[in-house]
Amino acid sequence: MEYIFSDKVSELKASAIREILKYTSDPQVISFAAGNPAPESFPVGTITEISKEIFEENPILALQYSITEGYTPLRDAIKARLEKKGIFNPETDELIITSGAQQANELTAKVLCNEGDTIVCEQPSFIGSLNAFKSYNVNLVGVTLEDDGFNIDELEQTLKNNNTKIIYVIPNFQNPTGFTTSLEKRKQILELAQKYNAVVLEDNPYGYLRVEGEDVISIKQIEKEQGKSGNVMYSGTFSKILAPGIRVGYACGNKEIINKMVVCKQVSDVHTNIWAQVLTCKFLEKVNFDQHIQDLKAIYRKKRDFMIENMQKYFSSAISYNIPEGGLFIWCSLPDGYDSMEFCNRAIKEKKVALVPGCSFLVDDSVKTGSFRLNFSTPTDEQIEKGCKLIGELSKEMFGE
Amino acid sequence: MEYIFSDKVSELKASAIREILKYTSDPQVISFAAGNPAPESFPVGTITEISKEIFEENPILALQYSITEGYTPLRDAIKARLEKKGIFNPETDELIITSGAQQANELTAKVLCNEGDTIVCEQPSFIGSLNAFKSYNVNLVGVTLEDDGFNIDELEQTLKNNNTKIIYVIPNFQNPTGFTTSLEKRKQILELAQKYNAVVLEDNPYGYLRVEGEDVISIKQIEKEQGKSGNVMYSGTFSKILAPGIRVGYACGNKEIINKMVVCKQVSDVHTNIWAQVLTCKFLEKVNFDQHIQDLKAIYRKKRDFMIENMQKYFSSAISYNIPEGGLFIWCSLPDGYDSMEFCNRAIKEKKVALVPGCSFLVDDSVKTGSFRLNFSTPTDEQIEKGCKLIGELSKEMFGE
Repeated sequence: MEYIFSDKVSELKASAIREILKYTSDPQVISFAAGNPAPESFPVGTITEISKEIFEENPILALQYSITEGYTPLRDAIKARLEKKGIFNPETDELIITSGAQQANELTAKVLCNEGDTIVCEQPSFIGSLNAFKSYNVNLVGVTLEDDGFNIDELEQTLKNNNTKIIYVIPNFQNPTGFTTSLEKRKQILELAQKYNAVVLEDNPYGYLRVEGEDVISIKQIEKEQGKSGNVMYSGTFSKILAPGIRVGYACGNKEIINKMVVCKQVSDVHTNIWAQVLTCKFLEKVNFDQHIQDLKAIYRKKRDFMIENMQKYFSSAISYNIPEGGLFIWCSLPDGYDSMEFCNRAIKEKKVALVPGCSFLVDDSVKTGSFRLNFSTPTDEQIEKGCKLIGELSKEMFGE
Repeated sequence: MEYIFSDKVSELKASAIREILKYTSDPQVISFAAGNPAPESFPVGTITEISKEIFEENPILALQYSITEGYTPLRDAIKARLEKKGIFNPETDELIITSGAQQANELTAKVLCNEGDTIVCEQPSFIGSLNAFKSYNVNLVGVTLEDDGFNIDELEQTLKNNNTKIIYVIPNFQNPTGFTTSLEKRKQILELAQKYNAVVLEDNPYGYLRVEGEDVISIKQIEKEQGKSGNVMYSGTFSKILAPGIRVGYACGNKEIINKMVVCKQVSDVHTNIWAQVLTCKFLEKVNFDQHIQDLKAIYRKKRDFMIENMQKYFSSAISYNIPEGGLFIWCSLPDGYDSMEFCNRAIKEKKVALVPGCSFLVDDSVKTGSFRLNFSTPTDEQIEKGCKLIGELSKEMFGE
């Protein structure tokens, strides 16, 4: 039988990262290509203890069908935290537990976009979200990302020319660039969304992982401080502050949108694994959360600093990069005119170090770019040192000292 | 801000079951409305033990990001079982772990259907799947379900008149009717799918729960025995044989389709909760599976028999029903001319017993029907007796002895 796939998925491909990750099954390969949180950051002892408690106290709760919106005590706990941070507005907002922030982003697109509607994203951006949007056959338009956020003129021009439903932003330590959108630009993005009747989808997986500098308030909070609501959908996750394998995230925003997302989630996976929801809830009750975040920051600060130290030591000076104030990634650029795809291919083949070429994060991944992404959260210190040395060798062979 | 939701979701509503389930939060209400497996069927001791082992042996495996296809040892274990049953064909097929069979069904529709394409379903059928299909704005056409499966003439007529991509079938102890499609009709359905170039989506959540009679081979197996492949997508789940809250299901079928489903799953939830996948895998390794199924059958046989016994004892003889050979449901019909919505409303309001009216399982739920669904797996014996007595009273008030 010959299949004709739906238009929305026929062009959809596994991401280039996925292809590169295949090489990483070779134990000799050092991977700077992943986006995994540091395994040493998982509170394994606490999780083990909580899981044991769950099965002692109420196993049926953790095993039976549950409601689509999510485990009520967990939703209440997250709402309370977000309200304290000025993000959740109980009068206008609702919150749904999702199977990772990935699902929060996908469902937002599904409920708001017809095929052909426009979603504007930072360029480069997180390929998982870009592919989620593409899977609804939307018109995905990338707007240049500068080191303090969107190029605002280009953003407004794009909004003027398109019926834009969603502006997708990762404001803190963006994937792949590590860039953080400035307060000024956050205000401008919100203003433009209000002017052009679009929803800002503010995806904040890395916000807690700031290891330097001051927090910038979220776009959702700016809206709330204006006494307004409805133009920002905020998505968060426990992947980077508890564990990603449990797949617990959430979306918070206007009640009407969240209610539609509930119906769409119901037909997708009924509800998120309930053991994981109860676990997350008990984790929030049990730990000193601020201390936990401080502990995580210490782990990530150390890893970032060690990575930067080794990059400075070994990389050709022709490779430029900026030092992110948090998150998991460092964004590097080759000298003008060089294609990072070629560089990354040589890195994996000649040096057995996996990097992700910048084109993987573009709306159209056939465009050549001179940038690549380094992850410092997954590799061990030994791997960081050895990997930087190897990439350093390659860079010096190609570009000199 | 006024939202315009996408066409595909704007008409999508929470199911009527969901509305009825709201009443069931009243502890005085006896619910025959759920579709939950019997909580006493959950192997709590074994699960507790396995979960403990997982955190002792390899906690990082159960907490870190994993691959979208699913945990390889679990996939291999399921493939081996399905191959033994003549369902999985290693030469042509692939298998993906999904977040419940719900996701298997949703992804099949997403990869195969453009808006406006036709999906044919049994009428009545499982509302979760019908809503999943509707959420892609397909042309959903219901074909009369008889007590041995589709009305085949009506099915062929429907296929002739529509560009049908998917024929959706729950062949064993169907939800809501409890009907099982006969071998003869399974062959005819496959033949028609081959003739009209459609994919049979064979959803088999209840297959293991046969408490009487002989198993009928699956449509997927019939295809394999013909030496053919590609016209059947088979979806299964651990919801009814292990626990539904863990959300572990799978889809098995043509490699090309499964590969597309992998890409679509990646953008939906990245992967299914990995703790749950490892748990399921270890469960399959650890238990005597055949014995486990025998134990489940004993639980469900007892519950079904007790339900039927009480229905026979208390219900007005004007209510007819058939005795299902397995599954979780009994399908009842009121005397001609009566609307089951009214009956179910009176049942909940006057008797505090929750039933689901037949219209909830139709493509168009505004159509009046005289049928309703009873679930016998969730209520306790005491609730079964009391609930049947109350429904009996109502039925006798309305229709005499």
